[in-house]
Amino acid sequence: MSDDQEAPLINGVEHKICEVLPCVDDDYGGVIVEMKTPMDAKSFVAALRYSFEQWRSQGKKGVWLNLPLSHVNLVEPAVKEGFQYHHAEPTYLMLVYWIPKAESTIPLNASHRVRVGAVVLNHNKEEKYGTLRGSGNWKIPTGVVDEGEEIFAAAIREVKEETGIDTEFLEILAFCQTHESFFAKSDLFFVCLLRPTSFDIQKQDLEIEAAQWMRFEDSASQPITHKNELFKAIHRICSMKMEKSYSGFSTQHITTFFDDKLGYLYLNKQEDMK
Amino acid sequence: MSDDQEAPLINGVEHKICEVLPCVDDDYGGVIVEMKTPMDAKSFVAALRYSFEQWRSQGKKGVWLNLPLSHVNLVEPAVKEGFQYHHAEPTYLMLVYWIPKAESTIPLNASHRVRVGAVVLNHNKEEKYGTLRGSGNWKIPTGVVDEGEEIFAAAIREVKEETGIDTEFLEILAFCQTHESFFAKSDLFFVCLLRPTSFDIQKQDLEIEAAQWMRFEDSASQPITHKNELFKAIHRICSMKMEKSYSGFSTQHITTFFDDKLGYLYLNKQEDMK
Repeated sequence: MSDDQEAPLINGVEHKICEVLPCVDDDYGGVIVEMKTPMDAKSFVAALRYSFEQWRSQGKKGVWLNLPLSHVNLVEPAVKEGFQYHHAEPTYLMLVYWIPKAESTIPLNASHRVRVGAVVLNHNKEEKYGTLRGSGNWKIPTGVVDEGEEIFAAAIREVKEETGIDTEFLEILAFCQTHESFFAKSDLFFVCLLRPTSFDIQKQDLEIEAAQWMRFEDSASQPITHKNELFKAIHRICSMKMEKSYSGFSTQHITTFFDDKLGYLYLNKQEDMK
Repeated sequence: MSDDQEAPLINGVEHKICEVLPCVDDDYGGVIVEMKTPMDAKSFVAALRYSFEQWRSQGKKGVWLNLPLSHVNLVEPAVKEGFQYHHAEPTYLMLVYWIPKAESTIPLNASHRVRVGAVVLNHNKEEKYGTLRGSGNWKIPTGVVDEGEEIFAAAIREVKEETGIDTEFLEILAFCQTHESFFAKSDLFFVCLLRPTSFDIQKQDLEIEAAQWMRFEDSASQPITHKNELFKAIHRICSMKMEKSYSGFSTQHITTFFDDKLGYLYLNKQEDMK
């Protein structure tokens, strides 16, 4: 075939400018634009306007625009075309545009960071403690739950990372919500009870000065435990747990509404209360 | 005073370019730059480079750069100077730069959206239900917990918004974690038990078709309750609760570690288990 049949120069350029931006439909009547190849601002704006004509005629609602760091040159033109920021991660910025006149049903951004603290009780009623560098206090292993990570899995991972110990998750004993953890974001801290399945401590994390098995009474008698209401509450709960007079939330794998997703329900199974 | 004493033209311009950007110290050895007045990209880069000289010599660690939508022209220059995205909200983008050679201790971005569902049991063992438009199923009031909002307060607010009923929070009965709720973000859904303090239903939310008190048995016998494992679990828990054989987590107001923040601890107080 000759060039003018396949991609005549002038029409080819016209055609290129007027292509709809690379996008896929989302599950809510919108589209997600994922920019992969570099584009200059002018071509982007032309393609964006052409795309909006199509999306409007198709009755699309939300338009998501995912701009990797490499496409930072398109942030300003996108905002000038009416996009707002939705969320950002280190390597990309997600913008959004709501087409309908009706009120936006764009989901709110993530509002909470989730952390775990792990209490590991062995048969000798000892707890597993790491210590934060320089603090002088023995503390339970803690860490941040990643996006997509189960809370119980994060607790197991943190204990492994900080001490080398393998564990089984038993229960969430309690949790704590605080605010303005960083900027306006809130924080959920889940206190998890774990049972060790290996016992040799190998300090692994560079941030940890030392890790050791510690008698429950010794950890409870540290000044910080008395001073800090959360530490005090954790120790009280652990004491009750050892006397089998406390029941936290354990897991049940279920299908959730509305979208039939698999997830974990944390609830009081009360087996050991009976 | 004469002009050349106050702000000599050439030195004035020099001086203006070489001012440190408007910033405040954070609590972790870093600075937070908040751009208030408009600035062109060239002046911004000059001021940023001058500022970095100062911050480096002061041993600063993380540099946070808060760019409102109105300063979108500075996003590209900031990224080209080495900033990464950290998080974004509809009206601003937060970027961050880690100065030290040591590993970054910049906190991870928020990873979870938090939602509540509210079970309101009155003395007649009825539950309070709204229905989602067009779904044909009676469902408990649900909604998203805002940044900075207590979980229990969100449950009270959602019931009020959807039905006009005033309530007291009793317990979190269970919670559920799912993933990829939107993009890579995860979701925590807390099932709250509330006691009504007013009883006249006034449907308020436009999204609600109808709201009514409903016999517990009738809500439990809906096909959706049998089909959906989460609904089924909630009904089983409510049944146990009515027989006083289930204990969820209620609240205790405490000071939390590390930063002596006030927060709410959710734990099993077990009063009604005894």
